Amino acid sequence: MKHHYQTMQAPHLIIIGGGFAGLELIKKLNNKPIKVTVFDKHNYFNFQPLMYQVASGGLGPDAIAYPLRKIISGMPNIAFRMAEVQRVQTERNEVMTSIGTFSYDYLCIATGAQTNFFGNAELEKYSMQLKSIPDALDLRSDILQEFEKALNEPNSQTIERALNFVVVGGGPTGVETAGALAEMKKNVLPADYTELDASKMQVHLVEAAPLVLAAMSEVSSRKAKQFLEDLGVHVQVNTSVQKYDAVTGELFLSNGTVLKTDTVIWSAGVKGKTIDGISADVITRGNRYKVDAYNKIEGLSNVFAIGDIAYMETDGAFPNGHPMVATVAQQQGRLLGKNILNMVSNKPLKPYTYLNLGSMATVGRHKAVLEVFGIKMQGYIAWLGWMFLHLMLLVGFRNRVVVFLNWVWNYVSYQRAIRIITRPFVQKQ
Amino acid sequence: MKHHYQTMQAPHLIIIGGGFAGLELIKKLNNKPIKVTVFDKHNYFNFQPLMYQVASGGLGPDAIAYPLRKIISGMPNIAFRMAEVQRVQTERNEVMTSIGTFSYDYLCIATGAQTNFFGNAELEKYSMQLKSIPDALDLRSDILQEFEKALNEPNSQTIERALNFVVVGGGPTGVETAGALAEMKKNVLPADYTELDASKMQVHLVEAAPLVLAAMSEVSSRKAKQFLEDLGVHVQVNTSVQKYDAVTGELFLSNGTVLKTDTVIWSAGVKGKTIDGISADVITRGNRYKVDAYNKIEGLSNVFAIGDIAYMETDGAFPNGHPMVATVAQQQGRLLGKNILNMVSNKPLKPYTYLNLGSMATVGRHKAVLEVFGIKMQGYIAWLGWMFLHLMLLVGFRNRVVVFLNWVWNYVSYQRAIRIITRPFVQKQ
Repeated sequence: MKHHYQTMQAPHLIIIGGGFAGLELIKKLNNKPIKVTVFDKHNYFNFQPLMYQVASGGLGPDAIAYPLRKIISGMPNIAFRMAEVQRVQTERNEVMTSIGTFSYDYLCIATGAQTNFFGNAELEKYSMQLKSIPDALDLRSDILQEFEKALNEPNSQTIERALNFVVVGGGPTGVETAGALAEMKKNVLPADYTELDASKMQVHLVEAAPLVLAAMSEVSSRKAKQFLEDLGVHVQVNTSVQKYDAVTGELFLSNGTVLKTDTVIWSAGVKGKTIDGISADVITRGNRYKVDAYNKIEGLSNVFAIGDIAYMETDGAFPNGHPMVATVAQQQGRLLGKNILNMVSNKPLKPYTYLNLGSMATVGRHKAVLEVFGIKMQGYIAWLGWMFLHLMLLVGFRNRVVVFLNWVWNYVSYQRAIRIITRPFVQKQ
Repeated sequence: MKHHYQTMQAPHLIIIGGGFAGLELIKKLNNKPIKVTVFDKHNYFNFQPLMYQVASGGLGPDAIAYPLRKIISGMPNIAFRMAEVQRVQTERNEVMTSIGTFSYDYLCIATGAQTNFFGNAELEKYSMQLKSIPDALDLRSDILQEFEKALNEPNSQTIERALNFVVVGGGPTGVETAGALAEMKKNVLPADYTELDASKMQVHLVEAAPLVLAAMSEVSSRKAKQFLEDLGVHVQVNTSVQKYDAVTGELFLSNGTVLKTDTVIWSAGVKGKTIDGISADVITRGNRYKVDAYNKIEGLSNVFAIGDIAYMETDGAFPNGHPMVATVAQQQGRLLGKNILNMVSNKPLKPYTYLNLGSMATVGRHKAVLEVFGIKMQGYIAWLGWMFLHLMLLVGFRNRVVVFLNWVWNYVSYQRAIRIITRPFVQKQ
């Protein structure tokens, strides 16, 4: 395949970020009269919805990561650079990166979101998160190391700390992680740690809102909570985390409860990942960039933001911006692709309207909630639907096959086969 | 399964290391009247022979790692502890570890070997090695980051440094790694890096002996060298590495050649991984412990060493100790298992004699050399045999399935699918 990126004469679009939003934008611009450079500090796209399965040992990282170069390998006008973007200079149409400065005609910021600790430094330092593959591998190692540690503790108080797992935040990630931990208690602990009393492992889910999965309908939320409780998860709603003392392992909750734990998994919120050089005036709620209906950042003529980092008020139904989910990111990516081509050829632009395709979460074996196109399902059928839709959403045939085979394996064996600690040996305190 | 490890009254054997040797020893002692504790700083056994395929993106780490706890989960008298052994006190029959001090009646050191840099500090610091899964993932990231770097280099000298890969040591690991790199040049580079001139990538193999695969017959050695050269690898035999300058990237060879490279992969030798507390008097050639025909360390009555760490002179055919290979480790592990049971029941011990089962190495697609039971094969049939034998040698059904499916995939697609950089973002100099 002849690659004419380097020689082509065309407007140059720089995309920062190869996530759900960036990826759809790239695909729309394949083989079109525009030169595209994608920057990302990772050389792969990662499928975040299944990150918790990497953390719980059900999948390897390669099952949910897809090389960005493979995605663009057949696209003659698109190049990828693995680099960290340090600063944007909009007045000079330049992006400064770890590998040099690049000029653009159009810039698209698709940097996504990062974990929001709401200013709590202690939790930011000591809790685990689930936003990247290294995060997921780290959490997996941590969970297994807690099991190992519990074995060596003569003191029942320290065993309690080691075997208490607290998930903060009852969105899909929190619910799925808590469910996966509960299944590890049921299946992994008794098989691998015969010397331990598995009943000592406790999984807690703490959610500030009155319901888990607050973005879904009440029937789904209630059912998800029930599924969690069926699996033995202690769910506390209307409860927020006040502070964490890493020395004593005490996690203080707003309802007065104090949980003793070494493992706090923080999935209570995200915020936009902004870039130096864009005016603070356009940063709003959730640390996101204010954009118009065409995803153009307020006050700039050729700079766009799509996905989690974009905050669009013009879509009447969402006065507080769209939910920070993959569907919005993908739709905005596709639409911006069309709109950039329209701009290049001086055609009118189309405004964005969110088409809500639904929402879903799985709690465990045969337990999921699913809402698609207004249909609500819970339980076994929802669980099958959840798996089917995730397989379809995965990028690349190989990843689909790998994930599918792992699921079959895990289902039949009741195991999480990849329970290996891959980070360098660190003695846990 | 009832686990009677904690309550059983029986002699206590401590095994340090869950590699090929330790694993066979464990299996022999399953459900026998001896209490066994295995220490390892990793919670998995890793199948070293396929490590280079993890490094070259053909396999994920979970394909070649197997949780030690899964191996022992059905064994009522055997326990595993993930810990680092700090010191042995043979006069008190104690092992001091990162999780406390443990007493033994019998001790078996099965710590294996580590890379031997022969005192060259510069190479130890800057070259890559292939002894652990983190090593392999690091090398994979490094190779891919060199490709990324080459893309951003305007200077042809720095491109040369980035795209020159030098493998030092022509044993099976060196030969297989060089072959895998040559296949990446052929298949990965042209597909993923269309902007780069793939012909600029060069793979070098440097070997001090007159032949690669010196442990095999001359016909296999010559054929392996030819296979490497067919794949474009520059093989230099009778050549050793003198020094490496990390600033200029110059690698000085004994024949006067200076190679410019950022990536030196060191597979030129191993040495035993000794433990503090065993007298230096019994450490001999290759940093190994002198053992008698029953793998008992010289001068100690209840301390044994098996596998790479053991140096046995009594086997007449091997006046310089046995080769440091998996077969020896496995055989010694099995024999020591029997001998320990013999000791416990006051039966006579059996001395060790090496049964050489053969040797093999694969260079690339359809290219391998194989010697089993005196039969020598090269080429396509050897390549099939190599794959079949490795699948059989892998631990666990799941790993066999995963490796097999990956191989089929790689064969059909000509790709190394797992070309993802998983270590945290580091800007390569």
